[in-house]
Amino acid sequence: MFARTDEEKVLRDPVHGYIHVSLQVVWDVINSAWFQRLRRIRQLGGAYVVYHCAEHSRFEHSLGVYEIVRRMVTEVRDIAEALNEREKVTVMLAALLHDIGHGPYSHALEGVTDTSHEEFTCRIIEEDTEITFILENCSTGLSKEVADVIRHKSANPLLTQLISSQLDADRFDYLLRDAYFTGTTYGEYDLERILRIMRVTDHNQLVVKESGVYAVENYIMARYHMYWQVYYHPVARSYECILHMLFTRLKDMGKDGIQERAYSVFAPLIHGGTISLDDYFKMDEYTFGYGFQCLCECDDPIAADLAGRLRDRRLFTYADSSPQTNRRIRDRLKKEGYDLRYYWGRDEVKQSPYVPYGSDHSGSIFVRGKDGRTMELSNASNIVYSLIHGPGKDDNKVFYPQEIHL
Amino acid sequence: MFARTDEEKVLRDPVHGYIHVSLQVVWDVINSAWFQRLRRIRQLGGAYVVYHCAEHSRFEHSLGVYEIVRRMVTEVRDIAEALNEREKVTVMLAALLHDIGHGPYSHALEGVTDTSHEEFTCRIIEEDTEITFILENCSTGLSKEVADVIRHKSANPLLTQLISSQLDADRFDYLLRDAYFTGTTYGEYDLERILRIMRVTDHNQLVVKESGVYAVENYIMARYHMYWQVYYHPVARSYECILHMLFTRLKDMGKDGIQERAYSVFAPLIHGGTISLDDYFKMDEYTFGYGFQCLCECDDPIAADLAGRLRDRRLFTYADSSPQTNRRIRDRLKKEGYDLRYYWGRDEVKQSPYVPYGSDHSGSIFVRGKDGRTMELSNASNIVYSLIHGPGKDDNKVFYPQEIHL
Amino acid sequence: MFARTDEEKVLRDPVHGYIHVSLQVVWDVINSAWFQRLRRIRQLGGAYVVYHCAEHSRFEHSLGVYEIVRRMVTEVRDIAEALNEREKVTVMLAALLHDIGHGPYSHALEGVTDTSHEEFTCRIIEEDTEITFILENCSTGLSKEVADVIRHKSANPLLTQLISSQLDADRFDYLLRDAYFTGTTYGEYDLERILRIMRVTDHNQLVVKESGVYAVENYIMARYHMYWQVYYHPVARSYECILHMLFTRLKDMGKDGIQERAYSVFAPLIHGGTISLDDYFKMDEYTFGYGFQCLCECDDPIAADLAGRLRDRRLFTYADSSPQTNRRIRDRLKKEGYDLRYYWGRDEVKQSPYVPYGSDHSGSIFVRGKDGRTMELSNASNIVYSLIHGPGKDDNKVFYPQEIHL
Amino acid sequence: MFARTDEEKVLRDPVHGYIHVSLQVVWDVINSAWFQRLRRIRQLGGAYVVYHCAEHSRFEHSLGVYEIVRRMVTEVRDIAEALNEREKVTVMLAALLHDIGHGPYSHALEGVTDTSHEEFTCRIIEEDTEITFILENCSTGLSKEVADVIRHKSANPLLTQLISSQLDADRFDYLLRDAYFTGTTYGEYDLERILRIMRVTDHNQLVVKESGVYAVENYIMARYHMYWQVYYHPVARSYECILHMLFTRLKDMGKDGIQERAYSVFAPLIHGGTISLDDYFKMDEYTFGYGFQCLCECDDPIAADLAGRLRDRRLFTYADSSPQTNRRIRDRLKKEGYDLRYYWGRDEVKQSPYVPYGSDHSGSIFVRGKDGRTMELSNASNIVYSLIHGPGKDDNKVFYPQEIHL
Repeated sequence: MFARTDEEKVLRDPVHGYIHVSLQVVWDVINSAWFQRLRRIRQLGGAYVVYHCAEHSRFEHSLGVYEIVRRMVTEVRDIAEALNEREKVTVMLAALLHDIGHGPYSHALEGVTDTSHEEFTCRIIEEDTEITFILENCSTGLSKEVADVIRHKSANPLLTQLISSQLDADRFDYLLRDAYFTGTTYGEYDLERILRIMRVTDHNQLVVKESGVYAVENYIMARYHMYWQVYYHPVARSYECILHMLFTRLKDMGKDGIQERAYSVFAPLIHGGTISLDDYFKMDEYTFGYGFQCLCECDDPIAADLAGRLRDRRLFTYADSSPQTNRRIRDRLKKEGYDLRYYWGRDEVKQSPYVPYGSDHSGSIFVRGKDGRTMELSNASNIVYSLIHGPGKDDNKVFYPQEIHL
Repeated sequence: MFARTDEEKVLRDPVHGYIHVSLQVVWDVINSAWFQRLRRIRQLGGAYVVYHCAEHSRFEHSLGVYEIVRRMVTEVRDIAEALNEREKVTVMLAALLHDIGHGPYSHALEGVTDTSHEEFTCRIIEEDTEITFILENCSTGLSKEVADVIRHKSANPLLTQLISSQLDADRFDYLLRDAYFTGTTYGEYDLERILRIMRVTDHNQLVVKESGVYAVENYIMARYHMYWQVYYHPVARSYECILHMLFTRLKDMGKDGIQERAYSVFAPLIHGGTISLDDYFKMDEYTFGYGFQCLCECDDPIAADLAGRLRDRRLFTYADSSPQTNRRIRDRLKKEGYDLRYYWGRDEVKQSPYVPYGSDHSGSIFVRGKDGRTMELSNASNIVYSLIHGPGKDDNKVFYPQEIHL
Repeated sequence: MFARTDEEKVLRDPVHGYIHVSLQVVWDVINSAWFQRLRRIRQLGGAYVVYHCAEHSRFEHSLGVYEIVRRMVTEVRDIAEALNEREKVTVMLAALLHDIGHGPYSHALEGVTDTSHEEFTCRIIEEDTEITFILENCSTGLSKEVADVIRHKSANPLLTQLISSQLDADRFDYLLRDAYFTGTTYGEYDLERILRIMRVTDHNQLVVKESGVYAVENYIMARYHMYWQVYYHPVARSYECILHMLFTRLKDMGKDGIQERAYSVFAPLIHGGTISLDDYFKMDEYTFGYGFQCLCECDDPIAADLAGRLRDRRLFTYADSSPQTNRRIRDRLKKEGYDLRYYWGRDEVKQSPYVPYGSDHSGSIFVRGKDGRTMELSNASNIVYSLIHGPGKDDNKVFYPQEIHL
Repeated sequence: MFARTDEEKVLRDPVHGYIHVSLQVVWDVINSAWFQRLRRIRQLGGAYVVYHCAEHSRFEHSLGVYEIVRRMVTEVRDIAEALNEREKVTVMLAALLHDIGHGPYSHALEGVTDTSHEEFTCRIIEEDTEITFILENCSTGLSKEVADVIRHKSANPLLTQLISSQLDADRFDYLLRDAYFTGTTYGEYDLERILRIMRVTDHNQLVVKESGVYAVENYIMARYHMYWQVYYHPVARSYECILHMLFTRLKDMGKDGIQERAYSVFAPLIHGGTISLDDYFKMDEYTFGYGFQCLCECDDPIAADLAGRLRDRRLFTYADSSPQTNRRIRDRLKKEGYDLRYYWGRDEVKQSPYVPYGSDHSGSIFVRGKDGRTMELSNASNIVYSLIHGPGKDDNKVFYPQEIHL
């Protein structure tokens, strides 16, 4: 039913060896301008200022998630048998497209710009773009079905579990990939083993065999360590803090305060209101990089300074947040003439290795015991039980220019 | 003071890249017959019947521990400054020789044979062997000093910590090495990072910097997973259970019950009493393998059967121990004519990722906080705190011939 | 003499483990805006359109070359002894800065824009930039000495050999790094071994010990395979062909033919004449990416089409060049209305694994035999002898739009 | 037709990730005493005295060759389509059993003992052993068909090519495996790529696609370097030279000259004549190790000395062979009372990276050009052309006790 490519296409990938493509619709999506745009958006936002090799893009991560889902629906017997052909194609496409709505530094900027990359993802898939055309041309109704998987509304909940759950292809790929490109070993875990122990219950619930609980414990610890070592690294958060400050400044300045050239780059985000997909398409990290370059020479000293800090990596320093510390730093900043709105940030992050039972139960991992019964992971693992009943970890930091004299 | 080799010797090692030797005394020890004997004793006892590539020997592990200690005393600044030249040489030699007293399958057999590899280690170093000669020839008193490090009686406790503590070169090497040769990833952790964060207090206590607690958490989890995935794998324990049974049988048969050829191989162990170093030298896994081969053809049907099971890997099966299960199996075994003394084993193993404060405090890892104060690891890591306050894990299994019909 | 940083800085690097920095001047250069700019220029130009993970930048390559030179001048005994402190610092800085003059896609564009990245490298080091200031502030005369190493005019030729010869840190790093990020294994060779066999003659000539000729053969083959599998991959050459065409078009259009916004980005290259360092600083791949985005909407259909091809990866197809093939394609292109100046490219590449004796003798590798005499590599290796006396390999391709109907 | 195991069995393997077994007959062979015996015979003979981690056995290599063949007959489309079910099972079994006839150090000892491991391989498969029983029980005639593949007499020549040709699973596994366990990188090549480019002609000839010639060049160079770096390492050859000497001595001494215990171990080899499979079964490296241990204490000073050299790694030193050198060494040996028959060895090895067209044409690699025509590899690769027309490499060494004073 679904057209195949002439011969199987393979893309060399350091994490998975090869990405295999034999469906024409997958190949067409990869070659679309919207998908190629993901090459211009880094996977890890500001982490490259800490781990200098973390330059990898959402393009390659998206291919990686696709490849893992492709393996799941062909190599994991239970999944292969639980899904029909159309569902398999749908979930592979959902894997490929799950991040298509990301913009530059979206995690850092969504707070200040009132945008949501999830919303853009669905719009790009359904709102008459080249992507919509490719999907509908392949099979009527496909674009909505793919978007439904991504927005957790799929008729078959198993499809969503494959790309968005505690044991999904998204996390599976990014942990391995981010570990590879940062050069840390913390994100490594045994993907082969986890794929081998995946099963599907009669109610289309993904579970793992009890005999493989070790591999899942290992994966959970890998994730936990990647959060603290990479994703929540204070230097990366410093970079994102300055990004946030700069966009706050741009919004405060308003349209008239910014020179034309730089303004045109950031206009849709500053202006507010709905952003057209045409405008969104053009917003990538190249454009932003150019915009920062222009801002460095703009008249506003605050915007120019913050943009220069991003460009040249002159980041804010940081301290553990506490009333005394914060008061001392803020006093000093004021004394030296800094505008606290743009030169003082506070950021608290929390992370537990694993917390079961989210509101929609998607936050749990289920284990099939030797007796065939299904239980929540912490009932099958003493390690996990200990972790979820122990104290969580948080980190509350303040960021400010290192030039001040404390 | 200590003679150097003409040029630095390097031995290719898959785990560390190269083993570097530039001290003549180290080179001489490596080339001694006693040290070469370690090639004939596997590092992991029976684990090779589960992980077919785990054929690596105590020879290469001993080189690996030496190499890590060599790096500690040269590359870790605090350690390099805390030790004088003689202490550095002493602890490198202690690292090289810490397992010299191991015999074939010693962990499995020490229970049944009343031997202790630690005792042999010290005897081999001090009791007038080629090793003693090499050390004393290098510097008078050196053999006792090396043995003192191994028996935890060194004047400088730091020396012992480097090779025998919760963060020692012994564990550092075997986790990486066993992971490499079993082909699992569970034992991997970031050794480079741990070496970088090691510090020494004014009281010669090894500590790690708080900023590297993640690396230590990772290492602790690696160790925990290696225990359950490799060292305590029930199939490896089945092999060791049969080893134990066979030696019980041999002792019960006594000298007269065993044919001359096979007897001569195992005599010192069966006979009891003090074993001479000459006899001990000859006991290696080659000799034992030959002995099992001979026993396969001996008159005693039980010894022949058990030896054949070891040789041909026809292992006992296993079940979780419980009063009912055990009664049922034992009844069945009796009914089918098995002698329970040799065909029924029970084995309970426990393992916590980390338990601080052993009786001699050697069981703790200490962390130096940003404020310079030293604290026990679980006060610096929420993960570790959770693990030591959560439930431990144990595994209680019974082993028996799979041929019986339950 | 040369100031050290407070404590050794380490940067995590997947290829070398860590980059170690303990000289203040090195740390200052790394933190300069000019050096940080290298993050915005990819190492492999267009190869990322073939190997989707090849997003790595000249920033990390420059750090890698520095790290290898740092190891050479500290760990390779002959080199450590042949150089004084100032020479060591100079060559580490030269390693760090050897690519500082690269612009976006410089290899592809230098033909059409009359620029030379080597020239910019020396200008940036010597012409009163932040870099010049850092070097001169560290030690008077240092900037010229560093530039002299890069332009092969150093008083001590050994310095240049370390960063620019057949066995230099530049190649050592890029082969390993490009192999890592493309995910191919072709570029792997045994760097540790090569460092171990490096020696220096009395005339400051770098040689390798004969016992390590295998490692050098391996390295030469790795280089050869990387050329054909990565650097000369026809799809990467297609991308660079279009880049070349687009810049040809921009020059032909001249200043007035290009809309202001896009023009401003490319102006210095189009305009011709000497480019100021201020203008050059702003030219990076972000800026170019933005420029291509703008050109996609410009009035000139050819420039808009070519820019869109680059942005969306709609590349030219290719064929082996031959008179008949070329005539047929050119005829067809004309018939379909394509302007051959911008839609027809021919590109011939040649590569031999190793050719000794360049005009300045820098193209040879020398081997020290067991008898102490120095010989050119092909006299010490039958493999290399065979390769240089066998036929070379070239590849002559034509590139054109795949839309035409042949 | 062929029975499957209950569920797929997987064995963890560091080289291939997992070995997959789903055929009952394969599982039964693996669990036979004859196959388990391969655990007691090292893959690399004496190379472990150079590369201390090269302790891996023929057991794991045999599993590896099986796994590669399993992948070939299922994943390489042309092969999967060219073979029927019975042929696939046959060639997988032939892969598993191709080395079953190896004895301890067989490569070194076949010269002196008039045995041939190939002959034993066929005898073990066909001559009424447990292996014969398993195969015939699975399907009548299977044992002969498996042996026919191994002895190059299979009705379908493609079967033999998969396990014994210039591009066979045997070499594919041992290069990767020996590289892994020695810790060298020389043996690494891109197996995935080679599997992807394998094709089968209409005449059941294995060929590779021209587009993958690079991967084959790489593999050929890997093989070449492994020969010189590992297999022909002079220290390993020294070990094998002493082995040869010791067996020469044992034969010269004859039955009566050797003490009973040691004699019993080596008897079948010394005695000459046909060796029964029962006797052959018992000859493994454990038995030999025990035998060397016994010989160390025997009355014959030469046998005792040579055995001790093997046990304690006190190897012969070596020099490049030349008339003068040899005369000088031999004179000295005689003067110092050494018996040249047992203390003087000469060994010449030759290796070319690739020589096409052996007498049975099995020595060639064939390439399918873009035009569909088949050519011999050197016509498709300039590198290979150069190598086969250049000078070969040989190494002619003499071995003797390092104790003599030259």
